[in-house]
Amino acid sequence: MSKEAPDFSGIKAAAARLAGVAAATPLLENAELNDLAGGRVLLKCETLQHRASFKFRGAYNKIAQLSAEERRRGVLAWSSGNHAQGVAAAGKLLGAPTVIVMPKDAPAIKVERVAADGAEIVRYDRRLEDREAIGRRIAADRGLSIAPPYDDPDIIEGQGTLAMEAVAQARAVDAAFDAFIVPCGGGGMSAGCALALEALSPATQMWIAEPEHYDESWASIAAGKKIRADISRPTLCDAIATPTPGDLPFAVMRRLVRGGASVSDGDVKGAIAFAFRYLKLVVEPGGAAALAAVLSGKIETKGKTVGVVLSGGNIDGALFAEILASHG
Amino acid sequence: MSKEAPDFSGIKAAAARLAGVAAATPLLENAELNDLAGGRVLLKCETLQHRASFKFRGAYNKIAQLSAEERRRGVLAWSSGNHAQGVAAAGKLLGAPTVIVMPKDAPAIKVERVAADGAEIVRYDRRLEDREAIGRRIAADRGLSIAPPYDDPDIIEGQGTLAMEAVAQARAVDAAFDAFIVPCGGGGMSAGCALALEALSPATQMWIAEPEHYDESWASIAAGKKIRADISRPTLCDAIATPTPGDLPFAVMRRLVRGGASVSDGDVKGAIAFAFRYLKLVVEPGGAAALAAVLSGKIETKGKTVGVVLSGGNIDGALFAEILASHG
Repeated sequence: MSKEAPDFSGIKAAAARLAGVAAATPLLENAELNDLAGGRVLLKCETLQHRASFKFRGAYNKIAQLSAEERRRGVLAWSSGNHAQGVAAAGKLLGAPTVIVMPKDAPAIKVERVAADGAEIVRYDRRLEDREAIGRRIAADRGLSIAPPYDDPDIIEGQGTLAMEAVAQARAVDAAFDAFIVPCGGGGMSAGCALALEALSPATQMWIAEPEHYDESWASIAAGKKIRADISRPTLCDAIATPTPGDLPFAVMRRLVRGGASVSDGDVKGAIAFAFRYLKLVVEPGGAAALAAVLSGKIETKGKTVGVVLSGGNIDGALFAEILASHG
Repeated sequence: MSKEAPDFSGIKAAAARLAGVAAATPLLENAELNDLAGGRVLLKCETLQHRASFKFRGAYNKIAQLSAEERRRGVLAWSSGNHAQGVAAAGKLLGAPTVIVMPKDAPAIKVERVAADGAEIVRYDRRLEDREAIGRRIAADRGLSIAPPYDDPDIIEGQGTLAMEAVAQARAVDAAFDAFIVPCGGGGMSAGCALALEALSPATQMWIAEPEHYDESWASIAAGKKIRADISRPTLCDAIATPTPGDLPFAVMRRLVRGGASVSDGDVKGAIAFAFRYLKLVVEPGGAAALAAVLSGKIETKGKTVGVVLSGGNIDGALFAEILASHG
């Protein structure tokens, strides 16, 4: 709950905390993808992280820094699903009971995994209710610590460890990122990765990929002030359909992010089908946004070495099957 | 075409040939899978190899040892699809034209990828015609070298590199395999892995997993002589539906394989759905046989550290969708 800004020393401390706890996810390369991109694409596969998204990193880094007494009382989070799973899994490992505020339309696969980790789930209507208000009220009533999804230095620093890892893994295959592209919702991972790259690979251009209608982070960076998306618009990318970037992420992103791309539901479906067919990886819509930006040509990759984060893989079977049928 | 037996020094030479050419596929671990197995399961993900199966290893190791003149004339292979893709991809890299004899009922995804690598494809009827006879006749007529799918020391040694890699990767996470389980068709990978493990990890028990009705390798080992399967029976596992083990693989397997398990189509579908849901990996039926043996409890894993090879990921979207619908 500290209010100081995230920084690289915090990312290094987070990496030490996560060593042997988080999965060191592979950095994969695929010939067909390189051919299409006309360059070298290195995929940081957070789909293969615990609970199939990068969110475990930040959640564990947050909860591990609570006092024993705070952990005993418990941790609350609001989330469309991936942060929820990360918090529930990290809480279970660290002995902290967890309460998760989740939208009623969250994918079933995400709700079930949170429940399986023993979290208490509170549902709300994403279009009518304010999840943060609901969460803060319950946390105050019950003395719970809050693990926010992105607007928190510990969370941002935890997510940044994935870029730190990726830079070392790229070096091991004689590569250096000209650009690093991440799916962006509230900006926690984007900010953490940007800070890690600033320190470890300053020549790398940091890019964010957002869903159409929810591209408020890049719009905010361009405008120099926070802009809100109209959250009544539908999107497949539940994981990153945020109304506006967090304050802490925005402060980092406006300084360090060099470009943004908006991807349509069609772009994202194409990327999911490509990942099935050629990469043999299961990627969820929000998790495929950066790959979709590359495959749709919205970010120039010709002759470049590009890091692309596949940030999550929690997609219901029915939707996956539908995408294979329409984009197979 | 040499007739000597495969051995560990050949596997080491193959590993040197493949360094920087084949993918060093990740060895992954998953909490849900460990919980179900009651032990530690380390997944060697050859689904993430070039053309999504281990077959590239043996094919490249074979073609790289041909003379320049032999490579110029070209290489022929018969295969239900994965070996075909490995040979076509390795031939393309090494400048050798390729001719592939493939069954008419091979999965479309496999046929298309072979064609995309520029191979000439000859189709045959798997139930009525002898692919090996067709292949040998064409090879003789046109002066082509043959890259057999498994009954060849160079092929076996190439496949064995995956176990060599896996032992080193396991050590890096403080693990040693009590058992190592591989999907088994003609026995090329099984034999190569058994030889690598004999040299590098002699305490590891080598197991093979085969499809119901096509479990002739374990039956042959148990009987001490080669037994033929009735190939008229249907199976989902096209990649490993072989009538009998190869001579060279059988000689190695009867000495080194300690156990065998038969998995049903239902077991395999369950494993594919599990890999989708928890591992976020796309695995094809034959490639999932070893995982299916673990998940169905046909191989005891309690308290053990077990290596499991996911050997291929080339499955058509329609079949994958059908499996998600019935086992989701």
